[in-house]
Amino acid sequence: MPSDQHGPGNPAPASPSAPPPTPTPGTVRPGGRTARTRAAVRDAVLTGLVEHGYPGLTVEYVAERSGVHKTTLYRRWGGVEGMLADALDLAGEDTWTPPDTGSLDGDLRALAQEILDTFTDPATAAAPAAFIAAAFQSDRAAQALRGFYDERFRRCAPLVARAADRGEIPAGTDPGALVRAVGAPLFLRLFITREPVDAAAADQAAAAALAAARAGVYAATPDTTGGRMA
Amino acid sequence: MPSDQHGPGNPAPASPSAPPPTPTPGTVRPGGRTARTRAAVRDAVLTGLVEHGYPGLTVEYVAERSGVHKTTLYRRWGGVEGMLADALDLAGEDTWTPPDTGSLDGDLRALAQEILDTFTDPATAAAPAAFIAAAFQSDRAAQALRGFYDERFRRCAPLVARAADRGEIPAGTDPGALVRAVGAPLFLRLFITREPVDAAAADQAAAAALAAARAGVYAATPDTTGGRMA
Repeated sequence: MPSDQHGPGNPAPASPSAPPPTPTPGTVRPGGRTARTRAAVRDAVLTGLVEHGYPGLTVEYVAERSGVHKTTLYRRWGGVEGMLADALDLAGEDTWTPPDTGSLDGDLRALAQEILDTFTDPATAAAPAAFIAAAFQSDRAAQALRGFYDERFRRCAPLVARAADRGEIPAGTDPGALVRAVGAPLFLRLFITREPVDAAAADQAAAAALAAARAGVYAATPDTTGGRMA
Repeated sequence: MPSDQHGPGNPAPASPSAPPPTPTPGTVRPGGRTARTRAAVRDAVLTGLVEHGYPGLTVEYVAERSGVHKTTLYRRWGGVEGMLADALDLAGEDTWTPPDTGSLDGDLRALAQEILDTFTDPATAAAPAAFIAAAFQSDRAAQALRGFYDERFRRCAPLVARAADRGEIPAGTDPGALVRAVGAPLFLRLFITREPVDAAAADQAAAAALAAARAGVYAATPDTTGGRMA
């Protein structure tokens, strides 16, 4: 990722795994004061989430931190849940695209590495982890998180199409299923079994996803993949 | 799972995925009053977690709910974190063993189905989901969760050894890696991307884990698996 996509205090790459703590400067849509207000509120929401968790996030906190009046916050976002969902929507409006290394193996390893990098650096891990935690307590946060990942999987469709065109996997392979498979063992270790993640775990996740995709497990009709290779 | 392992109010099977809300009667170790006190505290902790989440769980709540005096709670468990960790330890002392269907494919599908069943029934899903959520807020809960899953993976070693003996997968396949692979896509949907899970997702998770295991991805030396098949 080019370094000019990172502003000061915006250390997170826009990974497939997680919303960045703050958007990269080039991705903030023009809109003057409204866009600036939205960004200020998002920054305050993320800071509050990371520092206090969802139960400690209040409209008062966001108002004080963002400098946006409480009346405006209630009018535009309805309350904490609306601000949280909008912060995640805003994170999903970045310019992230999946890797394109020339091989599916390389692409999946790069994806796994992006997830590993995001979550092994406390500076980039805090905000996405806080969003994932908030979704346990807020249905609206859960909805927003689902929308964020839906969009990430959608963006990975060309990666999977290229691999099918090269004959590496069956045509009709489901991009969402393949990309989920790369991330799943890493997220499991990070947030369910609470085990460490490292480069070996990332490579194993990519290799397993590749093996399953080659075997046709993620194809629409896995039993006929032999005849459907590009 | 035989129905006599479930007492009233103990609806959760002891799955590979999650601690049951309360232990099955046959699995409570003998110990008279001490064991009963421990179980009462565990029940109160789980009820409190499910109803109020970790931030709302207090020693006062557990004392009132369990009938165990606050002084005893502080003396034996130190506080909320100790009670939470002990509740998870107690859940891990059950008699769960992995499926043994005669084939690795059948075993992995049965494992995935157990996870699906646990988390699609609100009665059995609540407590494990609350533990997973608590681990975001308590390092001690995270440690206890890791210990719980370590033990689950350990118990799956015979399942993997049987498959290697039958020549279905390379000898030296890592049980933890294989069992993690079965659960990971389901836990990802449930707690990260917040997508629905169903029988198709469970079967796909099992099929992907099987394909990767057959390809030697989880073997100690994946590049030499051809020569290491049992």
